[in-house]
Amino acid sequence: MSQAFDLRLATLRAIYRDGRSTPRQLIAGLRDKAAALNPDYHLFLHLLSLDELEPYLAALDGQSPETLPLYGIPFAIKDNIDLAGIPTTAACPAFAYTPNESASLVQRLIELGAVPLGKTNLDQFATGLNGTRSPYGECRNSVLPEYPSGGSSAGSSLAVALGVASFALGTDTAGSGRVPAALNNLVGLKPSKGLLSNHGLLPACRSLDSITFFTASAAEASELLALSARHDPLDAYSRRNPLWNDGSAFGTPRPFRFGVPRGADLEFFGCAEGPALFEQAIAQLRALGGEAVTVDFSPFLEAARLLYEGPWVAERYSVVGELIERDPEAVLPVIRAVLEKAPGASAVEAFRAQYRLQELKAQCDAVLAELDCVLTPTIGRPVTLAELHAEPVRRNAELGYYTNFMNLLDYAAVALPSAFMANGLPWGLTLFGRVFTDQYLLSLGDALQRHSGLPLIGGNALATPAPAGTARNDRARLVVCGAHLDGLALNGQLRQRGARLLEATRSAPAYKLYALAGGPPLRPGMLRVAEGGQAIDVEVWELPSAELGSFLTGIPAPLGLGKVELHDGRWETGFICDAWGLDGAEDISAFGGWRAWLASRA
Amino acid sequence: MSQAFDLRLATLRAIYRDGRSTPRQLIAGLRDKAAALNPDYHLFLHLLSLDELEPYLAALDGQSPETLPLYGIPFAIKDNIDLAGIPTTAACPAFAYTPNESASLVQRLIELGAVPLGKTNLDQFATGLNGTRSPYGECRNSVLPEYPSGGSSAGSSLAVALGVASFALGTDTAGSGRVPAALNNLVGLKPSKGLLSNHGLLPACRSLDSITFFTASAAEASELLALSARHDPLDAYSRRNPLWNDGSAFGTPRPFRFGVPRGADLEFFGCAEGPALFEQAIAQLRALGGEAVTVDFSPFLEAARLLYEGPWVAERYSVVGELIERDPEAVLPVIRAVLEKAPGASAVEAFRAQYRLQELKAQCDAVLAELDCVLTPTIGRPVTLAELHAEPVRRNAELGYYTNFMNLLDYAAVALPSAFMANGLPWGLTLFGRVFTDQYLLSLGDALQRHSGLPLIGGNALATPAPAGTARNDRARLVVCGAHLDGLALNGQLRQRGARLLEATRSAPAYKLYALAGGPPLRPGMLRVAEGGQAIDVEVWELPSAELGSFLTGIPAPLGLGKVELHDGRWETGFICDAWGLDGAEDISAFGGWRAWLASRA
Repeated sequence: MSQAFDLRLATLRAIYRDGRSTPRQLIAGLRDKAAALNPDYHLFLHLLSLDELEPYLAALDGQSPETLPLYGIPFAIKDNIDLAGIPTTAACPAFAYTPNESASLVQRLIELGAVPLGKTNLDQFATGLNGTRSPYGECRNSVLPEYPSGGSSAGSSLAVALGVASFALGTDTAGSGRVPAALNNLVGLKPSKGLLSNHGLLPACRSLDSITFFTASAAEASELLALSARHDPLDAYSRRNPLWNDGSAFGTPRPFRFGVPRGADLEFFGCAEGPALFEQAIAQLRALGGEAVTVDFSPFLEAARLLYEGPWVAERYSVVGELIERDPEAVLPVIRAVLEKAPGASAVEAFRAQYRLQELKAQCDAVLAELDCVLTPTIGRPVTLAELHAEPVRRNAELGYYTNFMNLLDYAAVALPSAFMANGLPWGLTLFGRVFTDQYLLSLGDALQRHSGLPLIGGNALATPAPAGTARNDRARLVVCGAHLDGLALNGQLRQRGARLLEATRSAPAYKLYALAGGPPLRPGMLRVAEGGQAIDVEVWELPSAELGSFLTGIPAPLGLGKVELHDGRWETGFICDAWGLDGAEDISAFGGWRAWLASRA
Repeated sequence: MSQAFDLRLATLRAIYRDGRSTPRQLIAGLRDKAAALNPDYHLFLHLLSLDELEPYLAALDGQSPETLPLYGIPFAIKDNIDLAGIPTTAACPAFAYTPNESASLVQRLIELGAVPLGKTNLDQFATGLNGTRSPYGECRNSVLPEYPSGGSSAGSSLAVALGVASFALGTDTAGSGRVPAALNNLVGLKPSKGLLSNHGLLPACRSLDSITFFTASAAEASELLALSARHDPLDAYSRRNPLWNDGSAFGTPRPFRFGVPRGADLEFFGCAEGPALFEQAIAQLRALGGEAVTVDFSPFLEAARLLYEGPWVAERYSVVGELIERDPEAVLPVIRAVLEKAPGASAVEAFRAQYRLQELKAQCDAVLAELDCVLTPTIGRPVTLAELHAEPVRRNAELGYYTNFMNLLDYAAVALPSAFMANGLPWGLTLFGRVFTDQYLLSLGDALQRHSGLPLIGGNALATPAPAGTARNDRARLVVCGAHLDGLALNGQLRQRGARLLEATRSAPAYKLYALAGGPPLRPGMLRVAEGGQAIDVEVWELPSAELGSFLTGIPAPLGLGKVELHDGRWETGFICDAWGLDGAEDISAFGGWRAWLASRA
């Protein structure tokens, strides 16, 4: 393993703040380190010269970590993403071009103070999951040299794992941002499609590509996502996250339900340690308050097979096809073999495959509807370089078993380390969930990293305190105390929004309950009081956060939604009542709840 | 024009309630009427026999309009939608099959009490916009016999326009549910894709098809949509509406902004009356409180051209191709001509066209982001049967000028009558908007029908009172009074959710403003009081309703969101404060607003 280092965001900020180093000093040192590693690892295709670095460093003059959130943070860029003035090769010399502008995301990171170190090696045209498919040399694993780095974001993963960059940009169509994370003890965030701009990314499958972050920790990935997820008018596939746009959803998870593929759908390809490592990952999530739910994983796996067996290879061909037709030798034989069948696929086949995918997505969405996330291994079995050389297509396909479906189904995913194998190789799990639950998944990942205590890259431990607050996912909780209670007059307003009852419980003993004047429908007002209050029967429901707004706008005065304290000290969103509305209301607190009062009137 | 009739939902309910008729009597009479009309109009391909009707009528025994919302309401079904036990032909005898089950939507309507009268004629395989492309005979216009009914939902439009059914199901891929509405003085609702189940619909373009309603009035379409829009696990394209699932969004519109295509993009194909009729429609919307905004319509029109010039014809071919290859004579020559180029399209072309569509959608979405809806003519110029016979493809294409883009861009649309031409032919406009704004568009349509006073089909006037309440679209309004004010500490929480400032105004003179204890950030509490209150400076912001939920859940106690009264008597959703939270707070009402108080502290 490489020597100790610590390039985490907080660490570098402290170093800069304390004057222990400057971006110029630090990055010059990292540049030397990268240059020294490159003959062995082939991680950089282009390492910026000191002259090429200078404009980025000069822009930091007079700034600080206080004024620029990524001040002096070194990062690496997969060489299918544009950096102005530096060739983009996609690991294919014949394809290379030099862009005038940086990709939108790269530009944003630079504006935030980050410094690009260079462009990193990849499986040619991002087609592969292993890191050996490059004419610029193979990317060996950062821990065990007889294994590959994983790919296609091979060099980017190594740049972080070997301590050259704080974070790196990968891309992920089939798993290219997650498989290398698993093999190198990294967090690999594959955000929901469209959250990070793809403008300036050379597409693999344009409808499926995501740019990804490699980091040492989930907390850093959360911060980077919050800083850089922006709608980009230059990317037609750019999407706004309707649930949250910052890291405020990040925090300590509440009790949650996670899916686990049933035994028949788990595949470790003969890896003897795999089952126990996965059981250990399940146990870790349970220890965090998770309830494991066994799920039929077959529709996910069928969707995965569509990626290379279906017409989506035509998307890859639409990028590389012209070069293959003009100069077939310019493209690696293994990549050509993948793409050769694409020109024959018809539009009719493309639409039929999309219908099939939609059917599978409906099935998978139904599975996820009952869950907060799903847990899988990231890869079933690590493969050695020798195995890859012997059977390149089969071994590569094995690596994608748990990853290929993710972008087709439009989910968010986080790969993160959860153990080391007996031979010292990192072993990783993946948490995935509904689109736009990225920050929630990262909050679970953060809790898991803190719980496992696994050494991070560079030999570091997570020392920073856990984030304050509660992690929010895409479901909102709602405390109801009157006509919205299960089965009562307005309960349908919740059920038609897909709400489900979590628990019947009581408020803190600090409330009075009133029956408001007017109606029907009869309506309660629950008022928190300084003294003389009591516990009131309430129910906690859960509904999609996106549907809470229309529920709120339909609530008439004097009622509203604020925060209600439950008997165990939790504060949840729930019905409150403007005090002026109690004019003419009847104090029914003595009944202890709305149902009891209704019963007394029957 | 046909003789007077009134089959509106409310009318039939009153008739049944008062015992003036029974479903058995009424429907037998309508069956006779349909049979008499059919030789001239070819509207029904299969009219249910009394025996075939009997099970539906028998199911109504012991029921009433009180127990079944569509009790005894007669409806017609386009013959590409399944009705159990009755052949589905798609106007192609060689293609016919007899389904065992009804389409999900048909089944739902029957469960609600509606009675299916029969299966209606259409342009073969729903490929056409005119109503002449059927081996079962042409569908003439209900008002002027030298014009076509419009299509492809030809017979369904006639069933309603000629007074045989209260409503009818059409389908709409390119405009088939809107063009016939315009030509027959009907409302044609093309709902957001996925709101109505397509299970049991023979696809035209499976990724683009919508089932539609033809009705006399927008209010009836609203009611039908509210009753029948349900997520259907049997339809993989089924979608939940995250904004509202009932008709509660329906009501009187507030001031709104509507887009109008710039002059260069308007096309009337030589119709001399068109420009003035469209100007009149603009004036009508203005009279309802709408502000007209001229928009560049070219990306919408380019998207429209993709439908027949791009690879989406391959979707049609995937349904009909096998029959064409086996028995080309079984398909009308004009339909064959449309589909012939499909088999040659490649998957690469299909993906590239989808990329282009996505780029156009991003442009069109940006236009819509600033608007509540867009107004267009439904058709540029009516064409006569003679013109259609002379140039069938060109004239058909003209009919789709304002309709072809709608499903490709995933918008909701309502076609409705707005005038009669000099020759007596109805002339119609279309309102379209973002996905899931269906009920809002219908509320505008309802207001427009009431405003124009145009005679409905059957010679009826809209006599029922306008709906109470305010129409809600997919934007929520929010009154803020403190740190969320423009430029202040928490304003970013609104802006990152895409909110825009509507107005700086004052509350009703009934509030006190407090500075709460604690902070930073300093927070205000606005409390409504019975006396001694005053007007407080506030701002009204507008943000996507789907983002309001995550905003709400982030608000800490004692604050919440309820209803706030503005100086002009409007009540809008805004910040309220739980009374207990005022402990230790400072009454700053005398400053008249948060900014003034902040300034006093500076």
